[in-house]
Amino acid sequence: MATYTDIARRVYNHTFKLDPIIRSLLDTDFYKLLMLQMIWGLYPDVEATFSLINRTRSVKLAEEIDIDELRAQLDHARTLRFTKKEMIWLAGNNFYGSKRIFSPAFLRFLETFQLPEYRLEKRDGQFVLEFPGKWVETTMWEIPALAIINELRSRAAMKDYGPFTLDVLYARAKAKMWEKVERLAHLPDLKISDFGTRRRHSFLWQRWCVEALKEGIGENFTGTSNVKLAMDTDLEALGTNAHELPMVLAALARSDEELREAPYRVLQDWRSYYGGNLLIVLPDAFGTDAFLRDAPDWVADWTGFRPDSAPAIEGGERIVRFWKERGRDPRDKLLIFSDGLDVDMIEDAYLHFEGKVRMAFGWGTNLTNDFEGCAPEPNPGLDPISIVIKVSQANGRPAVKLSDNPAKATGDAREIARYLKVFGEEGRVELPVKV
Amino acid sequence: MATYTDIARRVYNHTFKLDPIIRSLLDTDFYKLLMLQMIWGLYPDVEATFSLINRTRSVKLAEEIDIDELRAQLDHARTLRFTKKEMIWLAGNNFYGSKRIFSPAFLRFLETFQLPEYRLEKRDGQFVLEFPGKWVETTMWEIPALAIINELRSRAAMKDYGPFTLDVLYARAKAKMWEKVERLAHLPDLKISDFGTRRRHSFLWQRWCVEALKEGIGENFTGTSNVKLAMDTDLEALGTNAHELPMVLAALARSDEELREAPYRVLQDWRSYYGGNLLIVLPDAFGTDAFLRDAPDWVADWTGFRPDSAPAIEGGERIVRFWKERGRDPRDKLLIFSDGLDVDMIEDAYLHFEGKVRMAFGWGTNLTNDFEGCAPEPNPGLDPISIVIKVSQANGRPAVKLSDNPAKATGDAREIARYLKVFGEEGRVELPVKV
Repeated sequence: MATYTDIARRVYNHTFKLDPIIRSLLDTDFYKLLMLQMIWGLYPDVEATFSLINRTRSVKLAEEIDIDELRAQLDHARTLRFTKKEMIWLAGNNFYGSKRIFSPAFLRFLETFQLPEYRLEKRDGQFVLEFPGKWVETTMWEIPALAIINELRSRAAMKDYGPFTLDVLYARAKAKMWEKVERLAHLPDLKISDFGTRRRHSFLWQRWCVEALKEGIGENFTGTSNVKLAMDTDLEALGTNAHELPMVLAALARSDEELREAPYRVLQDWRSYYGGNLLIVLPDAFGTDAFLRDAPDWVADWTGFRPDSAPAIEGGERIVRFWKERGRDPRDKLLIFSDGLDVDMIEDAYLHFEGKVRMAFGWGTNLTNDFEGCAPEPNPGLDPISIVIKVSQANGRPAVKLSDNPAKATGDAREIARYLKVFGEEGRVELPVKV
Repeated sequence: MATYTDIARRVYNHTFKLDPIIRSLLDTDFYKLLMLQMIWGLYPDVEATFSLINRTRSVKLAEEIDIDELRAQLDHARTLRFTKKEMIWLAGNNFYGSKRIFSPAFLRFLETFQLPEYRLEKRDGQFVLEFPGKWVETTMWEIPALAIINELRSRAAMKDYGPFTLDVLYARAKAKMWEKVERLAHLPDLKISDFGTRRRHSFLWQRWCVEALKEGIGENFTGTSNVKLAMDTDLEALGTNAHELPMVLAALARSDEELREAPYRVLQDWRSYYGGNLLIVLPDAFGTDAFLRDAPDWVADWTGFRPDSAPAIEGGERIVRFWKERGRDPRDKLLIFSDGLDVDMIEDAYLHFEGKVRMAFGWGTNLTNDFEGCAPEPNPGLDPISIVIKVSQANGRPAVKLSDNPAKATGDAREIARYLKVFGEEGRVELPVKV
């Protein structure tokens, strides 16, 4: 068997103009599609601008990433449409055990969907990247744009590495990832899924990590938030809803009274579209304590909560107390942990809550972008950073997120002050945000 | 860029009959060629039988490896000839800084060289594998036959692994190997080379390890004993001589007196062919203490020693004492360590002898066959074992190796007793032989 070079492939590899990061509109988080259907149904005319926020100010993104490359990747993503095969799969697949979760009319809307225009410039070493337009279009930029920026950053960090260094880098990353899988394999009733699309090192690396979990913990790996990977690998597509829903509805509120009710209004809207395991409350947009204090009793009937800005045990215990106060048995309820998880935290939370409440873990950045110690010399360009794309305005009014962690708050300072007056500051604790 | 399958390659991969382990007669240790030239010149008519010895009796080789596969691999190796390119390289390359180390007449002999016939059968779960015939032919079986058996054993150990498990296995092995390289990179004047052909996990893995050392420690990686890898990667081909020389000459001795002189006779023969850095004494065939005690003074003029059956520091110190006793300055001399090395031992010996003597390391089994902790579950089939192919008879007389370590002794018990009477038992210490 002589050495063999595929001439066509080699020539192609040396002449292509772009190695696209996003190659399918399904390469996004499943909750985006769920939210999109609700936005399309209930808020088709709302304007919502999404904006890139780099919380890791020390990293000058516009110095690490070439703006023209970024533009080329964003432009390429705009050329994508849902393909026939993808449309058939969305229409025919079961999600969360339900058939036809997407209505025929919504699917027709998707058929011609295209990512809308964007605004991009450099300022002080950072990118100003904004997606103005109809909420029902702009919302779809969040995940692909973050994945593009993160992968361009990885590529930039590795551009001087030769093939051997890259070989060792990925060998180490695989060995490291597999150690994590082996530890997780010791938790017999674990339910964990991949939530790492937006912060991934690269698409191919995310796919490898998903395969590793599938291979290593079998049924305990319950699925992925990435719709394309779910389709390609026959995994469950997972996810429910995100902060943009209460943020937009709060921004649209015409009075403090309406503002206070916005978080519950979101749940009512959601319930008009989805049921069962999709009834997951995301309580922290304007502070979890305020949310629980003012919650109507029916909130305690929902399937579960996703505490997203507190340490898992502390955040989970607060929800468990709520259920008990409202006379519900937490053992019937579900907690979904998804904030800055790594194996230690997963093990601790698992052991802490075992037998007390059902739980599931949505594993993000530390699943799909942990290259610490893998490069030949420490390479800060491979450390994940805390970038988000958040709704910044709705119908021209500023949007705000308070979070339980002031370090994760976003929005205009005056509006933040007003929200704090309406919701109170109870239970907000500043914690470092790594990812 | 769509997914791409090379149809021809895929069909070929699914239909080939044999994945040959040995694909070139240069896939052997360099010292075999050096010794071969001397044997061809001085002992062309000596008959020497080589025999497989598995010192790791607990491993039943014939139960792990299919005898028909072994036969197919050995038969394939017999079809090989030195190619034109290989002959040109042997004639034109510098070895140890010398041009034309191989004579034109010897090269003509190589042109038609073929590995001779072998005898193979199963007995009590082991292989009885013998190579009878002219020394000038049988000697060339040692390295390819060992490499074949070791790689067939690796393949058997991994035959139930799926692609993902194999991916993790090699990722871990690469990460592990690279940790070793990084440790060695801290020794500024290290001289180390690959001596791992015979015990390698596989040819491709040896090649990867060689590339890793080249990439990681640069000039401190001085070369490889593998002639094919030296040619393919422009490294120095390294190696001098082995125990078979004193063993055959001792077997041919017609009296105890001739027996006692055989080890020095070998050196005289060697010197008639080679000089300079090739003047390396291998002192332990019949006990290092006896060898040094009876050595003529000119032995101390040789460039260096390769103590091969004692711990590096202890074995090296014994040689340093010899040089001092004979009035030579060890700082002008070279010690080559090659017995069961791993990084700890290399570091210790390096620090111990730094500034006292020149040294070089020939790294074998723990370089090219260390998969401990790399499989998903401990897999003893991946642990290296101690197999050797030793000369067992010369012109019908039994051949013996005493070694400094009785565990490494080989040969007929009565002859061993006779040799012990002639050479004495001084300084022989039983140590476990792992590889």
